[in-house]
Amino acid sequence: MADPRFYSAKGPFSLQELAETAGVDIGGSADQDARFTDVQPLDAAGPDHVSFLDNKRYVEQFTQSRAGACLVHPDHAEKAPDGMALLLSDEPYRAYARVAAAFYPNAGVLTLPAGTPVIDDTATIDEGCYIAPGAVIGANAEIGPGCRIGPNSMIGPGVVMGRDCVIGPNVSIAYSLLGERVTVLAGAQIGQDGFGFSPGKKKHLKVTQLGRVIIGDDVDIGANTTIDRGSGPDTVIGAGTKIDNLVQIAHNVKLGRNCFVVSQVGISGSTEIGDFVVLGGQAGLAGHLVIGNGARIGAKSGVMGNIETGATVGGFPARPLKEWLRGIAVLRRLALKKVK
Amino acid sequence: MADPRFYSAKGPFSLQELAETAGVDIGGSADQDARFTDVQPLDAAGPDHVSFLDNKRYVEQFTQSRAGACLVHPDHAEKAPDGMALLLSDEPYRAYARVAAAFYPNAGVLTLPAGTPVIDDTATIDEGCYIAPGAVIGANAEIGPGCRIGPNSMIGPGVVMGRDCVIGPNVSIAYSLLGERVTVLAGAQIGQDGFGFSPGKKKHLKVTQLGRVIIGDDVDIGANTTIDRGSGPDTVIGAGTKIDNLVQIAHNVKLGRNCFVVSQVGISGSTEIGDFVVLGGQAGLAGHLVIGNGARIGAKSGVMGNIETGATVGGFPARPLKEWLRGIAVLRRLALKKVK
Amino acid sequence: MADPRFYSAKGPFSLQELAETAGVDIGGSADQDARFTDVQPLDAAGPDHVSFLDNKRYVEQFTQSRAGACLVHPDHAEKAPDGMALLLSDEPYRAYARVAAAFYPNAGVLTLPAGTPVIDDTATIDEGCYIAPGAVIGANAEIGPGCRIGPNSMIGPGVVMGRDCVIGPNVSIAYSLLGERVTVLAGAQIGQDGFGFSPGKKKHLKVTQLGRVIIGDDVDIGANTTIDRGSGPDTVIGAGTKIDNLVQIAHNVKLGRNCFVVSQVGISGSTEIGDFVVLGGQAGLAGHLVIGNGARIGAKSGVMGNIETGATVGGFPARPLKEWLRGIAVLRRLALKKVK
Repeated sequence: MADPRFYSAKGPFSLQELAETAGVDIGGSADQDARFTDVQPLDAAGPDHVSFLDNKRYVEQFTQSRAGACLVHPDHAEKAPDGMALLLSDEPYRAYARVAAAFYPNAGVLTLPAGTPVIDDTATIDEGCYIAPGAVIGANAEIGPGCRIGPNSMIGPGVVMGRDCVIGPNVSIAYSLLGERVTVLAGAQIGQDGFGFSPGKKKHLKVTQLGRVIIGDDVDIGANTTIDRGSGPDTVIGAGTKIDNLVQIAHNVKLGRNCFVVSQVGISGSTEIGDFVVLGGQAGLAGHLVIGNGARIGAKSGVMGNIETGATVGGFPARPLKEWLRGIAVLRRLALKKVK
Repeated sequence: MADPRFYSAKGPFSLQELAETAGVDIGGSADQDARFTDVQPLDAAGPDHVSFLDNKRYVEQFTQSRAGACLVHPDHAEKAPDGMALLLSDEPYRAYARVAAAFYPNAGVLTLPAGTPVIDDTATIDEGCYIAPGAVIGANAEIGPGCRIGPNSMIGPGVVMGRDCVIGPNVSIAYSLLGERVTVLAGAQIGQDGFGFSPGKKKHLKVTQLGRVIIGDDVDIGANTTIDRGSGPDTVIGAGTKIDNLVQIAHNVKLGRNCFVVSQVGISGSTEIGDFVVLGGQAGLAGHLVIGNGARIGAKSGVMGNIETGATVGGFPARPLKEWLRGIAVLRRLALKKVK
Repeated sequence: MADPRFYSAKGPFSLQELAETAGVDIGGSADQDARFTDVQPLDAAGPDHVSFLDNKRYVEQFTQSRAGACLVHPDHAEKAPDGMALLLSDEPYRAYARVAAAFYPNAGVLTLPAGTPVIDDTATIDEGCYIAPGAVIGANAEIGPGCRIGPNSMIGPGVVMGRDCVIGPNVSIAYSLLGERVTVLAGAQIGQDGFGFSPGKKKHLKVTQLGRVIIGDDVDIGANTTIDRGSGPDTVIGAGTKIDNLVQIAHNVKLGRNCFVVSQVGISGSTEIGDFVVLGGQAGLAGHLVIGNGARIGAKSGVMGNIETGATVGGFPARPLKEWLRGIAVLRRLALKKVK
């Protein structure tokens, strides 16, 4: 059970309610009257709990689990232990995401003691918002209904935020327009000056940054991530894109829709990235590149040229995955030969 | 036009005023009475706007632009469309930096509602400073004239800051002496303990850190960057050096003047870096190294030894650029041979 | 002498007191009545100062130092200049750590002007705590005796913190249980949502994160580091482990005891790391790996598989150090051959 100091579960839910929540069918030897109180992993679950099998590594655990109900792919249904109710899904982890959210709709939402946020008179705060102590909201900012602004965070003048955004502690957002249901975790800094200088032989000269950050609906932004505003054009994060912690997104970058950007990735200025692109952890991209839809950039790779739609690349400089792996194998063979 | 929710333009300016601001000559078919209201990129500019051509890629756009005036290198002057006033410069981007700053002198400077910063009685706040809500200023701190301290930022006891520094939100600065016109973007943390431990077989022992951070005039420091104070010697950032976001600078590092340090670079303890050095994004430098003036360290390279004055290096371990590129070519050829 | 704007020294101490503090023996031509006022490096120390020799590079400086006393390995004792008192230790840097801490017990501990932290009525704040201005403490949080919470930091609901923890400015800690003497530097964000999504072809679905962060005694956490809470299992940081700045620790990671994690390392979800492991700067580890006790992972290496106990690895993908270095040498030779 999730630690009650931090989490409180809704429910219990019947099997039918869980199936509806998850959008799945019921199978197995189901007791229609059973009620479930919590989610639990296969090895810890008991008769009151719902579990899930997603990774084939855990099939053995599944066959021995005491879970009262389990979200599972139909292919594995016949391996279920006696008495386990099955919730059959082609995507059991996705179904689990829905069930866990039903039990814990407020996980990750902190309520803090009352204090004095500082809100400009001209700012608009819609219904159902929560502004934590120490938050500062600038002139003409518009905070949509149901938003939560964390403690000691700044929402700069003129910023617009759609409904149900959740902004963590120690965040700053300036020069930005946010869609609906955007989540920004602790310490992310959004909208500050891009790294724009005219290099000089005696002294470098700062270039005034005049753009914005445009963030689509359902974007998640990780802790201590930085997103610079555009220099004139905007920096754009497409709807549904998920960005992990400590990521750097430079000015004028266009990130498409539904991308995954894993921790510590760096994207240089003006690079344009398509939809459903995956950037592995610590990957780095040079500036002014074009990355096609659905490309997959391996962790720690260094991308120095454009990447075609659907391509999978790795290494530094990044090249087609097979070629990179082949290069590693060749070098290893040469190295071992010399060692002997 | 820059979004009026965030930016308001000064002006309009005459061609003569713009030429003086930019320090350039007037050319082309100039209408001496024309007045200009804004800066705009070549493809968006109209008759009231000033644009610039810096990158050869955009020469075609230049020939078709409707911009009333354009900052351009004399070599491209003859390609200008009829009726465009020219502002001739050997460094058009540098000239643009000056013009954009004239139109938008306050871009990047946020004004927030009044609140209660917490300022120690013994701190000195000079004329014309703005201390945002939630800021905390420690004992005996000295804030020079015209400084701006962002919301929820801390200026620690004894910190000295020269005139016209701009400190963003969620910043902390401790044990530090700053020159004039230093900019620190959101979330940067400056002056905390360096990573100094005496390793033990049972337990590691912290080494008390007794130095400072010394920051020269005209230094820019990016968002969520960390600069540790010295262990006894100081950590030093030379005048005019520009540091991007999410950079790590360890204790006792000496960074020279007018360097560029691109995002996510890490510099290990006690490394000394000369003047006008460029460190590409995600590069990492081992500790106790000496990097000569004017060296260029490629993005993502891993520097494990000293680098000579003016050298250009890349790769991991970093070596002369040509050698690194040759190694890549050789390996690629071997790999492709095996694939076939 | 450390800058008196930031540091004030205790003492003076007698040679006998210093020997007891450091746990070492006295040697050399010691004046039993001498009293020492400060620590200083070899080249700056005078007769009233204590210095240390740890790195062989500085033996020459040692022979010429004017330091009144020096912490030194017995092997170097005979090279000491006349009149220098010796404090003999097999681990002089460790002994220095103790002596410096005796002179400067409060270095790194900031006192700020009084203000109004916001503390929930149900939170417990033990004796001797200091809560800085702008700090926010949530419901049912338990802050042990002698803790210090920095300005504008958030301690979330239910968080438990053992005695003598020091939390810097702009920190957030949520869903976490901390041991004793834990230090968290400025801007670190601990306990936010892990990067858990069920990928979809139309839309990715967030997976509710239900775990905690468990941090052992004597852990140090660097500036702007991020530690995500577990997804259901906990994220665990073992006692005595030292984590540098800008490190990313994903959900469900288990870090053992007494590890060193250097700046900008990224550890992906569910990876388990043994005790006394060293992770060099900018190293990246894939998820779901097992890293044995005492393993040493080189700076900038990319770890894609399990690592055995005591192994030393480097490169990307990481392999045994000798093999990696050999590969570099082979490639360099091939490249130079082609250049000629």
